[in-house]
Amino acid sequence: MTTLKTKKVDLKVERDFALLNAETLNDLKIKHSANVKVKSDSGEIMCEVIATEELIEPGFVGLKSGTLELLNVGPNKKVSVFVRRRPASIEHVKNKTRGSVWKEGEIRSIVNDICSGNYTDLEISMFTLAQYYLGLNMDEIQYLTTFMAEYGTTLDFEEPVYDKHSIGGIPGNKVSLVIVPTVAAAGLLIPKTSSRAITSPSGTADTMEVLCDVNFTADEILEIAPKTRGMLVWGGTLDLSPLDEIVIHKVEQPLGIDPHSQMLASIFSKKVSTGVDHMVLDIPTGIGTKMPTKEDAIDYAHEATELGRRLGIQIEAALSYGEQPLGKAVGPALEAREALDVIEGKGPTSVFEKSSELAGILFELAGIAQPGQGATLAADYITKGKTKAKMEEIIGVQGGNATITGEEVVVGEFTSDVLAPKDGYIVKLSNSAIKRIAKAAGAPRHKEAGVYLHKKIGDFCKQDEKLMTIYSNSEGRLTEALNLAMNLNPYLLEGMIIKRISSGPRK
Amino acid sequence: MTTLKTKKVDLKVERDFALLNAETLNDLKIKHSANVKVKSDSGEIMCEVIATEELIEPGFVGLKSGTLELLNVGPNKKVSVFVRRRPASIEHVKNKTRGSVWKEGEIRSIVNDICSGNYTDLEISMFTLAQYYLGLNMDEIQYLTTFMAEYGTTLDFEEPVYDKHSIGGIPGNKVSLVIVPTVAAAGLLIPKTSSRAITSPSGTADTMEVLCDVNFTADEILEIAPKTRGMLVWGGTLDLSPLDEIVIHKVEQPLGIDPHSQMLASIFSKKVSTGVDHMVLDIPTGIGTKMPTKEDAIDYAHEATELGRRLGIQIEAALSYGEQPLGKAVGPALEAREALDVIEGKGPTSVFEKSSELAGILFELAGIAQPGQGATLAADYITKGKTKAKMEEIIGVQGGNATITGEEVVVGEFTSDVLAPKDGYIVKLSNSAIKRIAKAAGAPRHKEAGVYLHKKIGDFCKQDEKLMTIYSNSEGRLTEALNLAMNLNPYLLEGMIIKRISSGPRK
Repeated sequence: MTTLKTKKVDLKVERDFALLNAETLNDLKIKHSANVKVKSDSGEIMCEVIATEELIEPGFVGLKSGTLELLNVGPNKKVSVFVRRRPASIEHVKNKTRGSVWKEGEIRSIVNDICSGNYTDLEISMFTLAQYYLGLNMDEIQYLTTFMAEYGTTLDFEEPVYDKHSIGGIPGNKVSLVIVPTVAAAGLLIPKTSSRAITSPSGTADTMEVLCDVNFTADEILEIAPKTRGMLVWGGTLDLSPLDEIVIHKVEQPLGIDPHSQMLASIFSKKVSTGVDHMVLDIPTGIGTKMPTKEDAIDYAHEATELGRRLGIQIEAALSYGEQPLGKAVGPALEAREALDVIEGKGPTSVFEKSSELAGILFELAGIAQPGQGATLAADYITKGKTKAKMEEIIGVQGGNATITGEEVVVGEFTSDVLAPKDGYIVKLSNSAIKRIAKAAGAPRHKEAGVYLHKKIGDFCKQDEKLMTIYSNSEGRLTEALNLAMNLNPYLLEGMIIKRISSGPRK
Repeated sequence: MTTLKTKKVDLKVERDFALLNAETLNDLKIKHSANVKVKSDSGEIMCEVIATEELIEPGFVGLKSGTLELLNVGPNKKVSVFVRRRPASIEHVKNKTRGSVWKEGEIRSIVNDICSGNYTDLEISMFTLAQYYLGLNMDEIQYLTTFMAEYGTTLDFEEPVYDKHSIGGIPGNKVSLVIVPTVAAAGLLIPKTSSRAITSPSGTADTMEVLCDVNFTADEILEIAPKTRGMLVWGGTLDLSPLDEIVIHKVEQPLGIDPHSQMLASIFSKKVSTGVDHMVLDIPTGIGTKMPTKEDAIDYAHEATELGRRLGIQIEAALSYGEQPLGKAVGPALEAREALDVIEGKGPTSVFEKSSELAGILFELAGIAQPGQGATLAADYITKGKTKAKMEEIIGVQGGNATITGEEVVVGEFTSDVLAPKDGYIVKLSNSAIKRIAKAAGAPRHKEAGVYLHKKIGDFCKQDEKLMTIYSNSEGRLTEALNLAMNLNPYLLEGMIIKRISSGPRK
């Protein structure tokens, strides 16, 4: 251990690093690329050592601004620097083999070490890939979920909490903006925490943020939600499941993987943290979703309900059709507009129906509606304006313009239409192509960007009729998105030739 | 893509990085921590982007000296910087699941991409951990071995090549220094490439380097070895199996893992590269080795002989006793001295016998000795001075003092004895403790450092008799090693109490 003074350095990179003079390395008997713990009064962070001869003097440690913030120290303050000791729980990760099972205490110590910043990125990948390659059994998933929740913030509402969760995978799934005010209008407590987009053009939090603030502290949520009965906030600020954030960020996103067990633990740890008692779980199913076949979706639903049972959460899973985007709008502002349209009684029926069905399941779980009658009751709430009134209240209390209508939502000023190349019925509409086009147009960072789908699967269109309109707030991004649309051909019209393969010109 | 001028930066860290101005990042439409390829006329290297406002101006890319060397450019030279495209072969890695098998072409593209620097560290860990968690079948191991060899330097001697290989795991295993001159003395070609220590106190290359140079180019080896019939060189300079170096360095060493399939492919790819036709494979077996049980060792031997058969290499595997260090000396200089002692007819019988046995197997494979007679013939070569004469020739041609004797080898000037705490028979002598003590004393970096074992398992010792002597060339390291020895207790004497557990003082 040694005590050094902090110095802020002008280097930006994802990982935390400690820039040390070669002499300091010598004193600590370590080499560059070793891992050290830098400790202040407020916390400790594992850093990779970068060595330098001149950029930092002996006696100092160079840190990026993000690390200084996490340590809650300014420049020229004393911090302790320790050589990292390899945590013992790594052995549990290493001992994972086919058929072997992590014990409760082993999972506890792994979660503890990862959340305390004791693992290197490589060690975190070893933990995550054990799940990816070997899978976990239900006991292991239960322990993982429980300890992940324990290391996060906990919200205790002291009354039954309702929730809706979608496993995601299809663009345009803005139903939470309809479901939450509907359920809250019936008096049930639904303080929904949502995520921002990870790989999609808009997460529920991004969409809601078009209408109002979504950043609230745990105390604010505990104060506001019991009054309004519903909120739609971003879960990211709450630190509900720190391990999940680490694993997503360092392994799952860069590798593009989503191990089954980690997906379940991720969802349920946050439900445990937010005190959810009853939940409807939306599982979009079909080609182009996370659950390509009905069997995949049913297996998943069984696992989720079993995990819920073990954790004391009543789950009803609902398989939904997911082979095309939901509704017509994709991208934060366009989706917010469409959700308000549905609430005002003029949105697409697909969004209206899915929202009613899922809200209806919660009504049935709560005993407000008889089995099989929930969707009708929920539809009634929407058509009679109860949902609208509650949504105004929620937007208002979350600091937005309460009486905003769908029409008033600002969308991208630059637009471009994609036209049908010929007459025909739409037989396919690709989720992944629509996602990529909406993102190329600027979503989710530029909230006004996105795609509006004039035609959906089963619709007939005539040649040169509009298939979709791309929205952007930059001409450059609009052109990029349009080029991508031309390349990806998200729509497939019946009788259309998908690809021509030629042997080259005749000799 | 953009063209930038190089600038050398005073930052030392393992991975290659590209320090770029925030404006350059903007132009390239990337963020810090993205991966870029930096390309010169001589090569291309994948670098992680570090962003800066002031340390590098727009138009420049800051690289560490190692990266500049690999690119073979000086400062202020033009290089191209490309945004990395995720290689398609990652999908093969991701698609590896229980029961699925990598196809030949898939393994080829993975090896190609890793050796071309197209994988991030995380992606390399995903490849290695697929092997660790799921294992590979024999077809996959064969393809992996073949492609790993293809991407490395190849030595073609145009005559049968003999080799000895140990899977390692026990300290003091200096038999190659006896076997190579013995086999070469019989006229067989044995141009042995060895490794330096990875986690042990001395690799064969480290030990041989005490006596002479071990760094030779492929051309030098092709010229010298056919004349002397034997050499003992470091394989590291030859780049025989680039993928192996990458995987060891970036994943296996930091995680402390050694996946079975990768271990086989690692060994055999280098044998293919160096044109080995006949090989004896030493498999140290027993508690404290890589093969804790005889069954593990036999399984491994079967796999190795099968892989050899497929690759056209005749293998004879020999299980050897590995539950204590081999011989009495551990550490480069002490081991070199002991090997010379054995050659001069005065070393420990364990080293003499193991060397004779393994060299004898090669004599039998070559048809020089009848089955079962090889060891006797090899022992004859040693006792009659033929091994000694050949070793002098080899040391001479590798630039050392040809007539050096064991006695003349310089060992650490600071020594300290560990004494027996009581009378008794030695029942255990821990490989791992001896390794750690020798390393604490300075081995392998300080060649004179190490441990000399006066007593081995089965020996009787009286109280205060010397168990071991620690050698170092620094008093500080000697003290550290001695303290470690007191802590680790590498020797177990019969009747000794291993640990006392007390309930605390009586109340």
